Amino acid sequence: MESYDLVVIGGGPAGIQGAATARVLGRTVALVDRHHELGGAGANTGTVPSKTLRETAVVLAGLRSRDLYGVDLSVRRKITVADFLRHERKVKEGLNARFNQQLDACDTRVIFGDATFVDANTILIHGRSSDEACDPHKERAALDEDVMIRGDKILIATGSSPSRPGIFPFGPGVFDSDTLLNLGNLPNTMAVLGAGTIGCEYACTFAALGSKVHLIDGRDCLLPFLDRSIAEALTVEMERAGIVFRWKERATSCVVEDVPTPGHLGRVRLGFDSGESLVVEEVLVAAGRVSNTGSLNLEAAGVKLGERGLIPVDRSFRTNVPHIYAAGDVIGFPALASTSIEQAQRAVQHAFGRNPAPGTPDLLPHGLWTIPEIGFVGSTEEELRKQGIPYVAGLASYADNPRGRILGDAAGFLKLLFRLPDLELVGAHMIGEQATDVIHIGMIAMHAHLRADQFDDMCFNLPTLGELYKYAAFEAILEAERQGVDRPLPKAAPGSL
Amino acid sequence: MESYDLVVIGGGPAGIQGAATARVLGRTVALVDRHHELGGAGANTGTVPSKTLRETAVVLAGLRSRDLYGVDLSVRRKITVADFLRHERKVKEGLNARFNQQLDACDTRVIFGDATFVDANTILIHGRSSDEACDPHKERAALDEDVMIRGDKILIATGSSPSRPGIFPFGPGVFDSDTLLNLGNLPNTMAVLGAGTIGCEYACTFAALGSKVHLIDGRDCLLPFLDRSIAEALTVEMERAGIVFRWKERATSCVVEDVPTPGHLGRVRLGFDSGESLVVEEVLVAAGRVSNTGSLNLEAAGVKLGERGLIPVDRSFRTNVPHIYAAGDVIGFPALASTSIEQAQRAVQHAFGRNPAPGTPDLLPHGLWTIPEIGFVGSTEEELRKQGIPYVAGLASYADNPRGRILGDAAGFLKLLFRLPDLELVGAHMIGEQATDVIHIGMIAMHAHLRADQFDDMCFNLPTLGELYKYAAFEAILEAERQGVDRPLPKAAPGSL
Repeated sequence: MESYDLVVIGGGPAGIQGAATARVLGRTVALVDRHHELGGAGANTGTVPSKTLRETAVVLAGLRSRDLYGVDLSVRRKITVADFLRHERKVKEGLNARFNQQLDACDTRVIFGDATFVDANTILIHGRSSDEACDPHKERAALDEDVMIRGDKILIATGSSPSRPGIFPFGPGVFDSDTLLNLGNLPNTMAVLGAGTIGCEYACTFAALGSKVHLIDGRDCLLPFLDRSIAEALTVEMERAGIVFRWKERATSCVVEDVPTPGHLGRVRLGFDSGESLVVEEVLVAAGRVSNTGSLNLEAAGVKLGERGLIPVDRSFRTNVPHIYAAGDVIGFPALASTSIEQAQRAVQHAFGRNPAPGTPDLLPHGLWTIPEIGFVGSTEEELRKQGIPYVAGLASYADNPRGRILGDAAGFLKLLFRLPDLELVGAHMIGEQATDVIHIGMIAMHAHLRADQFDDMCFNLPTLGELYKYAAFEAILEAERQGVDRPLPKAAPGSL
Repeated sequence: MESYDLVVIGGGPAGIQGAATARVLGRTVALVDRHHELGGAGANTGTVPSKTLRETAVVLAGLRSRDLYGVDLSVRRKITVADFLRHERKVKEGLNARFNQQLDACDTRVIFGDATFVDANTILIHGRSSDEACDPHKERAALDEDVMIRGDKILIATGSSPSRPGIFPFGPGVFDSDTLLNLGNLPNTMAVLGAGTIGCEYACTFAALGSKVHLIDGRDCLLPFLDRSIAEALTVEMERAGIVFRWKERATSCVVEDVPTPGHLGRVRLGFDSGESLVVEEVLVAAGRVSNTGSLNLEAAGVKLGERGLIPVDRSFRTNVPHIYAAGDVIGFPALASTSIEQAQRAVQHAFGRNPAPGTPDLLPHGLWTIPEIGFVGSTEEELRKQGIPYVAGLASYADNPRGRILGDAAGFLKLLFRLPDLELVGAHMIGEQATDVIHIGMIAMHAHLRADQFDDMCFNLPTLGELYKYAAFEAILEAERQGVDRPLPKAAPGSL
């Protein structure tokens, strides 16, 4: 039986990072994945594909080009599914090749198959025959028979899958966010069930492609974790794109009345608890995600499961079995590719005697690839009010920013929240093009406990969106002065922040 | 005679900021501009127009669209000058309207005309008749006769203009960066004289539009202030775009052999000191800029001039006459819109008894809107070696970054330089899409004296370019470990950077 310092179960962002971290520390590693491609939901079905499709939709539809450049730069014909998916597939293939290279380069044994625990150190891998394998590296990795391997330490990073409520007849016409990438036609009409992040992102993407999208949710407000002003601005933009919100509606039935085939759009009827019904060509169910722990036989290893299939871990990402770690979606919130990577790195460093910072970083940036994009970090106005923390807000709009004008994004803005009386940055909220990237400026500033006057003293490249920070900070200072708040600190000398 | 607390001469970025700052402090302000539009070179002829045209060229030419999306999204016909300039004019008009609103809102008197000093507090404004005025606000601002106004304090912010060496017959076919916006045709062949920032930016823009561009410079290396690896990567990309570099060549003659008219491309012959010659349809002379001080009659105010028409100032932006300040291009390096704004704000705060940080911020980000973009902040490798500062470099490439793959930018990269042994960030250099904005993450990090391990402990949104910082920092840590450098500091707890 082959034996390794570390066995990683799951080849998504957490698993790959875990394997690479162990190799950096000079340990032997085997990585098992039940798919025939590496990258997990991050690269193959979730994070990157949805963002790539968003970008493709924006480009193919020529969004803004007529307004800005006076010429129609859309593809000017019906966009096909092949058009829509081409770039996504290329990006995915590129990432898969890169992951394989990366694991090759660091000499990690990769095995494709289903892993189950035999005991707390032994994993049985049920191989898949190589003709099932679609990966170019399949020769190396596919198994013709079951094997058992032993790991001194084990990292569970099996991720999550879309939740599939029983009332939906998943198949042609009715998709979850994984199967959506197999869609055969671009729908003229579509229903998205669930207005969470994934639901909103896909609703925006399909609306950009010209689909009439109905976005249905049992709650009555959009993305309650967002600062209200951002959520309201997003609502306006989504409605402007033709998306119809149906709040406080729950689907009670879903019937495929006409089965779609490639080239033939079908008909799906949704019934709601309000008694109303809706007929669309395609349905996307975005009802949350569940951990992939069902087939691991965790009992054999003595690993305890928590609620909803999540694996409880301590601040070092150890399960109740000290040499078995877990990281990524499988341990629950925040379940982002970015946090999964960091968790896996810390787990493996801990496993091999390094002393990483414990837990997941407190200061997490968030990105939503809606149209327009949203980025935020730190507290919302609502949170500050609830906590009784006095603050001032400073706004800067894309319309007043030369780069914003070049991009033609008239609705975008940055809102900075500064605590009173010291005007330290405690929240940054942004909606508009490139917001998911530009919000990192705010994240680093919060790490560094920057104050409004320090932004006001800086130079930013012009024309850039980064400049918005300077102007938002200035507005906040003016507001603080209006409120009679003396700035308690003198302006710092340049460079001495 | 009207009298003001502050008279600002020049309505570009520095002048507008100076006026707005004085109004925030409750002072009366008049602003004089000799053009009939506000915004100066920043909005009207330099910074923003050149960046807008770059963006237009990228979009109209459908750069990357065929590769990425498998469809040709270029305009698919000969791009006209009207296509090319449409968006630039719209952005400019938008900014002009905004500046007018801004000055209106803060109740600044705006006067269009030529300003000359009568004495150290008195300015004579030679009005231009209103039919010359092209500004929508002309009714308010244009003068039918000369007026004199008095300023308690005065801010000179008259900016700079392109240098126009005598050998060039400026006119149809031979442009400087101001007159370029009047070009009548898009050339098939073009020569750009001077491979500085402006020359490189326009060379890239016209190459993207399909012009064959010859870039000619008396020196023998591209943009010597850049980190060498960035300059080399830019050279490769510019050559790939078809730009021909001609180093160590100086133009000795320039003859328009066939005068171009709208719809008719002309012929210009350039002779070089090497004896060679070159025939192109259009010539852009990018030979640096000179301060606009010639017509101010500074002697009457007692203001001394320095070399090349620059006005010498102290760290509070005071000229030798204590109540007369100067800011922006007119005082010389770095002569960026961003720094001009900051200088003017500090000058006016100082003039009215506030106590701003002195000088221009030491830590300046730089942006070049070449294709691809470049952003940098802090020291280059060459500077660190020269200063004998030990360091390690960490690289992260767009090709290994999911966002980079979505953008299809295979050549881009971020290089971070960390000082040894403490691994504090001392330089960040980036080439690729959005580099001018994403470099601000490095700027804030340098303000905050961040170390490599702190980046390594952070989460960035995925997929974003910001993530490159985490990976570049990680590579630098590995390199430091390879060199046997012990990290002197333990990993910080999350959020406690």
